[in-house]
Amino acid sequence: MFRTISVIGGDLRQLTLAKGLEQDGNRVSICGFDKNSDTGNPLELCELSEALKSDVVVLPLPVSHDQILLNAPFSSEKIRLCELIKGLTSKQLVLGGKFTPAILNLLSEQGVTVVDYFEREELNVANAIPTAEGAIEIALAELPITLHKSRCLVVGFGRIGKVLADRLKAFGAEVTVSARKCADFAWIEAYGYRSVHSTQLGEIKLDYDVIFNTVPYLLFDDMCLKKLSSDCLLIDLASKPGGIDFEAAQRAGVKAIWALSLPGKSAPITSGEIIKTTVTNIMREMEES
Amino acid sequence: MFRTISVIGGDLRQLTLAKGLEQDGNRVSICGFDKNSDTGNPLELCELSEALKSDVVVLPLPVSHDQILLNAPFSSEKIRLCELIKGLTSKQLVLGGKFTPAILNLLSEQGVTVVDYFEREELNVANAIPTAEGAIEIALAELPITLHKSRCLVVGFGRIGKVLADRLKAFGAEVTVSARKCADFAWIEAYGYRSVHSTQLGEIKLDYDVIFNTVPYLLFDDMCLKKLSSDCLLIDLASKPGGIDFEAAQRAGVKAIWALSLPGKSAPITSGEIIKTTVTNIMREMEES
Amino acid sequence: MFRTISVIGGDLRQLTLAKGLEQDGNRVSICGFDKNSDTGNPLELCELSEALKSDVVVLPLPVSHDQILLNAPFSSEKIRLCELIKGLTSKQLVLGGKFTPAILNLLSEQGVTVVDYFEREELNVANAIPTAEGAIEIALAELPITLHKSRCLVVGFGRIGKVLADRLKAFGAEVTVSARKCADFAWIEAYGYRSVHSTQLGEIKLDYDVIFNTVPYLLFDDMCLKKLSSDCLLIDLASKPGGIDFEAAQRAGVKAIWALSLPGKSAPITSGEIIKTTVTNIMREMEES
Amino acid sequence: MFRTISVIGGDLRQLTLAKGLEQDGNRVSICGFDKNSDTGNPLELCELSEALKSDVVVLPLPVSHDQILLNAPFSSEKIRLCELIKGLTSKQLVLGGKFTPAILNLLSEQGVTVVDYFEREELNVANAIPTAEGAIEIALAELPITLHKSRCLVVGFGRIGKVLADRLKAFGAEVTVSARKCADFAWIEAYGYRSVHSTQLGEIKLDYDVIFNTVPYLLFDDMCLKKLSSDCLLIDLASKPGGIDFEAAQRAGVKAIWALSLPGKSAPITSGEIIKTTVTNIMREMEES
Repeated sequence: MFRTISVIGGDLRQLTLAKGLEQDGNRVSICGFDKNSDTGNPLELCELSEALKSDVVVLPLPVSHDQILLNAPFSSEKIRLCELIKGLTSKQLVLGGKFTPAILNLLSEQGVTVVDYFEREELNVANAIPTAEGAIEIALAELPITLHKSRCLVVGFGRIGKVLADRLKAFGAEVTVSARKCADFAWIEAYGYRSVHSTQLGEIKLDYDVIFNTVPYLLFDDMCLKKLSSDCLLIDLASKPGGIDFEAAQRAGVKAIWALSLPGKSAPITSGEIIKTTVTNIMREMEES
Repeated sequence: MFRTISVIGGDLRQLTLAKGLEQDGNRVSICGFDKNSDTGNPLELCELSEALKSDVVVLPLPVSHDQILLNAPFSSEKIRLCELIKGLTSKQLVLGGKFTPAILNLLSEQGVTVVDYFEREELNVANAIPTAEGAIEIALAELPITLHKSRCLVVGFGRIGKVLADRLKAFGAEVTVSARKCADFAWIEAYGYRSVHSTQLGEIKLDYDVIFNTVPYLLFDDMCLKKLSSDCLLIDLASKPGGIDFEAAQRAGVKAIWALSLPGKSAPITSGEIIKTTVTNIMREMEES
Repeated sequence: MFRTISVIGGDLRQLTLAKGLEQDGNRVSICGFDKNSDTGNPLELCELSEALKSDVVVLPLPVSHDQILLNAPFSSEKIRLCELIKGLTSKQLVLGGKFTPAILNLLSEQGVTVVDYFEREELNVANAIPTAEGAIEIALAELPITLHKSRCLVVGFGRIGKVLADRLKAFGAEVTVSARKCADFAWIEAYGYRSVHSTQLGEIKLDYDVIFNTVPYLLFDDMCLKKLSSDCLLIDLASKPGGIDFEAAQRAGVKAIWALSLPGKSAPITSGEIIKTTVTNIMREMEES
Repeated sequence: MFRTISVIGGDLRQLTLAKGLEQDGNRVSICGFDKNSDTGNPLELCELSEALKSDVVVLPLPVSHDQILLNAPFSSEKIRLCELIKGLTSKQLVLGGKFTPAILNLLSEQGVTVVDYFEREELNVANAIPTAEGAIEIALAELPITLHKSRCLVVGFGRIGKVLADRLKAFGAEVTVSARKCADFAWIEAYGYRSVHSTQLGEIKLDYDVIFNTVPYLLFDDMCLKKLSSDCLLIDLASKPGGIDFEAAQRAGVKAIWALSLPGKSAPITSGEIIKTTVTNIMREMEES
């Protein structure tokens, strides 16, 4: 059974996570939040050396932007990753989001157990909701027409595509989803969307008011951009490398927006709760096994 | 049968209206749009004196902000209402939005037939959609949580309340609607929302993440604002005088946003199409009668 | 304040009503249910003479089928209406459903206060739900295709039309609604249905898999039935005289079903709860006034 | 490229399939339908020996009930499987549903290419729709309450569970779904259902009005049945062995219905169209490879 948890680094999401873990009855301390002005915070702010003694150490999402410093925007001092890692001992569980192989190597040398919560399916499913809401916010802000009766194309029927199509349809939009697999087409039909085969996207006229891309593969190149209706808005939700050639879009006069990391931006508190649920699942599974 | 229509004054909505009327086969000219840079515009831009000869004259929404000048933001010259009215003759049909009694008086002295399209039920029903979408855009932008699982209160179950509650529920929000009439409660239950009696709003703790007010009656005063959860967002969709004491909200530290005239702001093209549908209905009914 | 309530006559709906009133803290007795085998019934079964002494007397829906006997299928003895009425005194409140003018006359001569709960808007709104569910049950049972992707026409956009269209759309049906008023068309569009003008129904080809009629006006006559696709199923939900010429339908080989009084048949317990809510509203309003 | 297709045996589903294939431009003959009275049938009815010469031979779902005779309820003569198989030659493609290993063996000895269309994911996804509709029809027919506001438990979140939960929620039911995997819980939450962990089902009180089982594993045994509310309706949608001990249910006085093979029963024409889509996908893939 885990006794103590420390949440080191991160933003409002990690604070929310820390509070949630505390409310569930864990003993939680936080580190790297001295610049945070949230006065209602009941959590113990402690030094790094102290924080590293906890049974479980939770690092932010992403753990680091440059692989040198911990991602800790609320910390007035810089926290070096290698220093942090050296302070860990082999009985500890270390959780974080988007570890690079190099960092994982250092951690394994230290002998700790490491789990990347960003690779957990339930986190990615749950994150599809703030992503879809953030995408809809952009569409509502940018379009001079209502989503109701608008013609929307959702490229890709993965987690984000599924949730986004559901919400758009509820607005009364005319939703088309692109896919490749026969079973996906059956699902698309079951939920009442129109469908288009992915291989057709570069070939046919794309008569849509807004296109949401969720596939991290360059689809919207010079050729494909020519198939769009004028005034079509392109919103790219795919992680790097994304699916749009943004320079080509600019040349073609197409408004294109790359909306990365929407959960943390559009709904940081919900995002923190999602991480909390995932972290809790991981800890429970470790205990059970 | 109407032959010629001129659209005088207004913004993108009235331009959309003019194009739509043209596409339906009417002979349309526009006046007061010389500053508009929309190059794809196929409509004939004419002088006021010319425009006033049309069978039907369509004025903007609102007709005027100050009851002296026509509401014509795309016109480089000011158009005086009294001048415009003097140019009309008794066989003409004049349509506009939000005529004041004084203006109506002047028009009736001129002997023209006047209809205020803003008083048409179908326009107000249709406008509930861009209003609801605009309100959701604000909530998405302001809240640090997702609408999914959020606790939303919709005050009033009129046109806007009905559409807004429908959309919020589709996001997975926990929607409560306030009402007064027994039949409204039956409808609220039929659509699966929770309900609260309007008279209770000032008395009970209002445990919501966001409250959308649609009733133009001062409900959220000092007393009522104390019943809100901290961090509750207040969005007022009611026309003047609105339902929130904004100074009291500021004193109480409650974030309150007065979102007026959302259709024209959040979806001007859809808004213009709605006016076009209404204007067309009015013209058809005049012909039939 | 009301003290005692007796529920006299009726079926499972009235028993449900009686139990609900008891659970709300009223003193309730029942009469005319001696044939009911529901053993878990905690209610006091009493004689008519006793039941008639209550502050409030609740009669069934309809009060009578023949205007001579009370509608009391669970009673082994016949209860004559005139006898029942003679036993009432002027301080009592009598509630029932579908009183005829003759019966109302007799009751008013007795000096009692009478309210017909079947005329209450909230009861009729709430009844639209079991009616819509019953109609869908019929369609599911009769059609050799799924409602998903089926082409449905809902004739009339009143209470039943609104709820039915909502449910059908959720099945993934392609829903068209007929209406007459401009504002109704705006609502139909807001909710995402297709629309057709009522006056066109007799003129155009009606290419639907199933048609639900909710308007009590003979629309589907010989002429109109010829416009249907072969295999179209007609379900009439309108009260007498209904909207279908059933003999003409038989001649034309069109399957037509007249589904009357669905709430009591398809969901008697829910139906009883709806009556209970309405009766409670009536009693509360009487107290307040 | 395939030239000729024969559809041998089966019911209305296979006839619908045959007509659909013909409409797509294939040359289609049917065999084993001489008892069918459908006069509008434009298809060529031919002898078995003739039918076996086609490029593609489509057998019914299931191919056989007893593994001796072809499943051919519309045929006045019995068609023996071994005879049918002997007539095939190695260049042919044979499609059918639920082949047994023994039959597959015989077919492979004959050298033909065989595909079981019942094992295709898109068919099973699409079949979830008529299954869900059929399950709802049963619930509507059996329950004395409306689905609106009813407490429904869906056991299992596979294809049928997903579609069924979606439709039930649209009725306004309070839907709970049981699952095991963390990611499934995230999906269940995303779609707005309540959730319960599968391992809890035998332990907690199951306070539901109707339970739909979709998992082919005996869950509802004597112990579990004791946890149900009285009046709870049990509908088993799982294929053999099902999930309910029906004898135990009878002993416990619980109404339990085993609804097998709903697509063919509740929507044979849609079911035939689903087989047609799947068969077409298989033929296209064979051509492409």
